Amino acid sequence: MAGPEIERLIQLLARLPGLGPRSARRVALRLLERREILMEPLAQALTEAAARIRPCRRCGNFDTVDPCAICADPRRDPSLLCVVEDVAALWAMERTGSFSGRYVVLGGLLSALDGVGPDDLGIGRLLDRVGEGGVAEVILALPATVDGQTTAHYLAERLEGGAVAVSGLAQGVPVGGDLDHLDDGTITAALRARRRV
Amino acid sequence: MAGPEIERLIQLLARLPGLGPRSARRVALRLLERREILMEPLAQALTEAAARIRPCRRCGNFDTVDPCAICADPRRDPSLLCVVEDVAALWAMERTGSFSGRYVVLGGLLSALDGVGPDDLGIGRLLDRVGEGGVAEVILALPATVDGQTTAHYLAERLEGGAVAVSGLAQGVPVGGDLDHLDDGTITAALRARRRV
Repeated sequence: MAGPEIERLIQLLARLPGLGPRSARRVALRLLERREILMEPLAQALTEAAARIRPCRRCGNFDTVDPCAICADPRRDPSLLCVVEDVAALWAMERTGSFSGRYVVLGGLLSALDGVGPDDLGIGRLLDRVGEGGVAEVILALPATVDGQTTAHYLAERLEGGAVAVSGLAQGVPVGGDLDHLDDGTITAALRARRRV
Repeated sequence: MAGPEIERLIQLLARLPGLGPRSARRVALRLLERREILMEPLAQALTEAAARIRPCRRCGNFDTVDPCAICADPRRDPSLLCVVEDVAALWAMERTGSFSGRYVVLGGLLSALDGVGPDDLGIGRLLDRVGEGGVAEVILALPATVDGQTTAHYLAERLEGGAVAVSGLAQGVPVGGDLDHLDDGTITAALRARRRV
């Protein structure tokens, strides 16, 4: 129906998260209709990104420089080390603007079901960083899911006995959260962790 | 937060249909994580498509050749001319495999609200094709919307008095359509257009 070049483009687009064969077709058509203002710039941005952006060997963040801008920034506090599941979580932390330390990206979570063990994650990277000294606190900013909490427990055990404090994000009612729309688990956790006001 | 190359990529991805800033970020991360198997092939496919695929000057379809494969195919019936809104509709017609004629892509629909007049559409292309002779029937395969039907009426008037028959797609219950889930307008149209069985 469409030529092989268009079919190949649609097939690749359909492999992006959130796109299926139907929406990939729509995206391909939009790109073809806006060749000069959308397709050509996107082709160029992808080519440049593929050529220049690499994972930082120190923390796992993506950047055009290695070590990345965060690892290289002397204004960031080297005594605070935040452990995140992936670069998406790192970006989410950075968007808040409320963390001034550095990161280690695990690249996943422990999962018996998916066969992900400690050797599959950047745990060596974390232990090396702590072993270098200068880290006072490791913040486990991992998801409040079964795999996230299993991973947090495992890491807390591995770090036990060292000189670093290990902490995790607080669990409770999200900002703007309406009790009526929250799940029971969140309300129970918020009640248990209640604070004097 | 991310470098300017990543920000530029996210901004361009966010302009694709169905993607917002949040999903564009997710897509960018997936691309960076799968650089060799996804990002580089997609960059190459886009570069090639941008360089090679052009609208067919005869019908408006996208192809690497001009006239396109459909216009150039001698097995297609030149006496049947199907008028579609855009290339998406042309592809939808082709997927059915039940049309053996050729096409004219209008590139939109008449719309007083959006300020789209006859001169903004490929109507000249349609009239030229009919004027060349050899066309026996023009099939208006336009959407069953207000703008689609306005455009169909306008085209039918413009073609009136010529030697060509003008037809439109039948309206009725879609295949697999359950009456309980259909809108009143469709049921009314199907009832009015009822046929002896």
